[in-house]
Amino acid sequence: MHNKKDPFTRLTEISTKIATLQSIHSLLEWDQETYMPEGAIQSRSDQLQLLSGILHKQRTSSSYKKALSDLIDLSTGEIKQKEASFEVKAAAREWRRQFLQDAKIPSSFVKSFTKCTSAALHAWAEAKKSNNFSLFSPHLEKIVSLSRKKAELLGYKEHPYDALLDLYEPNLTVSTLTPLFNHLKEALTSLLAKIQKQPKADTLSLGVFSEELQKKTGHFLLEVMGFSKDTSRLDLSSHPFCTGIHLTDNRMTTRIDPHHFTSNIYSVLHEGGHALYHQNLPEKYYGTPLCEAVSYGVDESQSRLWETQLGKSSAFCSFLFPKLKEIFPDNFSSISLENFYHFINQVASSEIRVEADEVTYSLHIILRFEIEKGLMEGSIKVKDIPAIWNAKMQETLGIIPTSDATGCLQDIHWAMGGIGYFPSYVLGNLLAAQLFSTIKTAFPSWEQKVSQGDVSFIKDWLQKNIHQYGKIYSPEELILKATKKPIGVEDYIAYLNTKFGHL
Amino acid sequence: MHNKKDPFTRLTEISTKIATLQSIHSLLEWDQETYMPEGAIQSRSDQLQLLSGILHKQRTSSSYKKALSDLIDLSTGEIKQKEASFEVKAAAREWRRQFLQDAKIPSSFVKSFTKCTSAALHAWAEAKKSNNFSLFSPHLEKIVSLSRKKAELLGYKEHPYDALLDLYEPNLTVSTLTPLFNHLKEALTSLLAKIQKQPKADTLSLGVFSEELQKKTGHFLLEVMGFSKDTSRLDLSSHPFCTGIHLTDNRMTTRIDPHHFTSNIYSVLHEGGHALYHQNLPEKYYGTPLCEAVSYGVDESQSRLWETQLGKSSAFCSFLFPKLKEIFPDNFSSISLENFYHFINQVASSEIRVEADEVTYSLHIILRFEIEKGLMEGSIKVKDIPAIWNAKMQETLGIIPTSDATGCLQDIHWAMGGIGYFPSYVLGNLLAAQLFSTIKTAFPSWEQKVSQGDVSFIKDWLQKNIHQYGKIYSPEELILKATKKPIGVEDYIAYLNTKFGHL
Repeated sequence: MHNKKDPFTRLTEISTKIATLQSIHSLLEWDQETYMPEGAIQSRSDQLQLLSGILHKQRTSSSYKKALSDLIDLSTGEIKQKEASFEVKAAAREWRRQFLQDAKIPSSFVKSFTKCTSAALHAWAEAKKSNNFSLFSPHLEKIVSLSRKKAELLGYKEHPYDALLDLYEPNLTVSTLTPLFNHLKEALTSLLAKIQKQPKADTLSLGVFSEELQKKTGHFLLEVMGFSKDTSRLDLSSHPFCTGIHLTDNRMTTRIDPHHFTSNIYSVLHEGGHALYHQNLPEKYYGTPLCEAVSYGVDESQSRLWETQLGKSSAFCSFLFPKLKEIFPDNFSSISLENFYHFINQVASSEIRVEADEVTYSLHIILRFEIEKGLMEGSIKVKDIPAIWNAKMQETLGIIPTSDATGCLQDIHWAMGGIGYFPSYVLGNLLAAQLFSTIKTAFPSWEQKVSQGDVSFIKDWLQKNIHQYGKIYSPEELILKATKKPIGVEDYIAYLNTKFGHL
Repeated sequence: MHNKKDPFTRLTEISTKIATLQSIHSLLEWDQETYMPEGAIQSRSDQLQLLSGILHKQRTSSSYKKALSDLIDLSTGEIKQKEASFEVKAAAREWRRQFLQDAKIPSSFVKSFTKCTSAALHAWAEAKKSNNFSLFSPHLEKIVSLSRKKAELLGYKEHPYDALLDLYEPNLTVSTLTPLFNHLKEALTSLLAKIQKQPKADTLSLGVFSEELQKKTGHFLLEVMGFSKDTSRLDLSSHPFCTGIHLTDNRMTTRIDPHHFTSNIYSVLHEGGHALYHQNLPEKYYGTPLCEAVSYGVDESQSRLWETQLGKSSAFCSFLFPKLKEIFPDNFSSISLENFYHFINQVASSEIRVEADEVTYSLHIILRFEIEKGLMEGSIKVKDIPAIWNAKMQETLGIIPTSDATGCLQDIHWAMGGIGYFPSYVLGNLLAAQLFSTIKTAFPSWEQKVSQGDVSFIKDWLQKNIHQYGKIYSPEELILKATKKPIGVEDYIAYLNTKFGHL
């Protein structure tokens, strides 16, 4: 065997090719949302489809399978190299997991699915624009049917939805989520009822916020978070997102609304949280799964930690507010720090998920979880979604959307074929609270530091306890290691009760 | 044979994949020059290298060769389908030409060449910055040696340089170029001597031109040329360029110098000329060579036509000047249209090619042609380039560069491995003059139209006579068909003599 590369090295080579192709795919997507001329959409779709095909071939190739089989037994998961390090074992476990998933989905299925979602996205946009669910429903029916097919292909033990959840959160199941979400729903609705009895904060009319100054604010926040322009950038798009094209190439976008300064600020903090994670993944394992975010939920915990736990804290506000007064002297002249804090922390039931406050946000997700679960098990039919949506909104948030466009048609996820994704948003909230609670304990004077604009200790803690591990540990192991507790809802509920119970 | 796709359809499918991968490669390059964070350069280089490798494999694959061999005899070039249309024959000719070229260059050579130019580009940038040719010369020696190797691999009849010229201008040879360039050199130096005896135009001090207003000017010019934002965009980069990612996705860049308005205006007209060509190529043949620019020289003729023949004409100035006065009221208040026309048409020997006027520009290229020819045949050694460069500058332009940085180190082309490319720039000038002379004859009232901002008749003529044909004809056939004359220098020399002989 001498003179021959060991299986880990061979796998890393193939896997690095796959990661590099994936990074090209990400750049195409980034460009599509930022700078691509609109007329180029068909050409872009051809480029993405071609790349996806090449990626699928590489991921399921016989040479890849051979190298993988030399390192790990594909059927049992047993490592074949006895002297393998902990990291090599972790990489093998993740490679195998991904390979088995990919191998179960034939490329003909991938093509039909892509073709279906491509048409569905178009129909969804039309349906939303004209507030006409029936334009979208036949497409959603196909997506549900293909998603059930996908679940069968992937396999599951208890519930077909489990197969989809597992794509975003390894090993997460309906039977784990259901009691957790029920508990959360009860706690949040009861807190919401309490808040609704409190007097409301005044609405602030702050005038128009120029695009130029909002951009300046965005760059200022990224500077506070410690980003370098050498390895990151900030652009505009209609829906803010973050793409880690490489550890040295982190692209964030924000949305600028001339009448609301919050959308830009909290988008930047949110996407910045993702980007910090992506740029601090363990570079020496680039190309292997070890240099990837461990799960969508943990990735989302990073964004929500910066956006809400830190970004909406009283300490950060006392740092941010004077800076905003400097940047926008005309807009903030007549309001106080206290007004500002209450303004950005208003709680109120509203129809749009992405505009929801910290208390109601997870309720929006739980509603989607319940519907997705019903669609997957067949207890909910697509045609009944509008009525069920509205009934559930009424039940948990006490409001009924004014239209399907701002109700069940508001999100792009289903049209993209992303059934199973939503629960990660709640996990992100739970984990953000759990992590930030640990940070607060570790740094009793955190508020003093933050109010002076020093957030480097938070960044360092996250890097040391989360980022640097990539996928070396499972999400459960990682959170246990970092917070000394299993993943749970307690910190989140305690945080919301403390912050909003007597705001 | 029924139920089986015909060879042309099969080839079009493979070729469309190649074109799509190539378009992704182009986007990566565009992004690198416009928005990529600088720290991502290594990751970008990995992405480009991977894609180039995949492209090379596709271009030389056995399935591609098989499909091609079913359509055309690879050794004789004889079409095997007797009923093939003119277009199918043309596509087959171009596919074969490209395939034979690609097949002659082993992928190991492509890799060494890429590795060599990657290091050379870095060394060249350093050498230019520190005005130290010796930092670059060992790299250039390798490039020359590899280029000679490449010429041997590609094959040639008379001169090794012919093999490289052929990559940019099919069938162009040293024996054709030498007398043509000698004739041109004589005509241009004699015209230059005449101009140097004329009184010089005054230097104009016009103040600072804001970035915002210069961008506005760029977009205004693209609008005049008839571009739609739906299928094109304009960005900034340090060296202006145009990338046709797809017919529906044309990306141009410009350079903004706050002290000179001309750089932006003439970059936009130049790149716009390229982009009009690319977006008007015959879409029904997308993926085949028929939907490609016929040669670098013809592509350059399109840019130079808009930049110089039209853009620096008296008629266009009389349209442009009042618009510029509107956009920059502070800068142009005290000068007349006549001042303006003379200012943008100043002729003076200068060291930098890209800043050269219409009369001296081709002399810069001829100097490079002579050196490249000498390097390829071995009559010039790399170490002697600085001295030879300066002597030739003295001989033709009457000046000696103040440093190698602004002399033989000024261009990126050699560091990129692009020996053989420069002559296309002169061809572009010749053809621009020849085409525009034909347009002027066809539209006797052209000056009246242009001075009113109507350039659509030029666009239409170019589309009808050049753009729509892609590579269906050879460059020689295309120009003969469009201008009723073979490619020649007469129109160019006559144009320059008329315009500058008594300016």
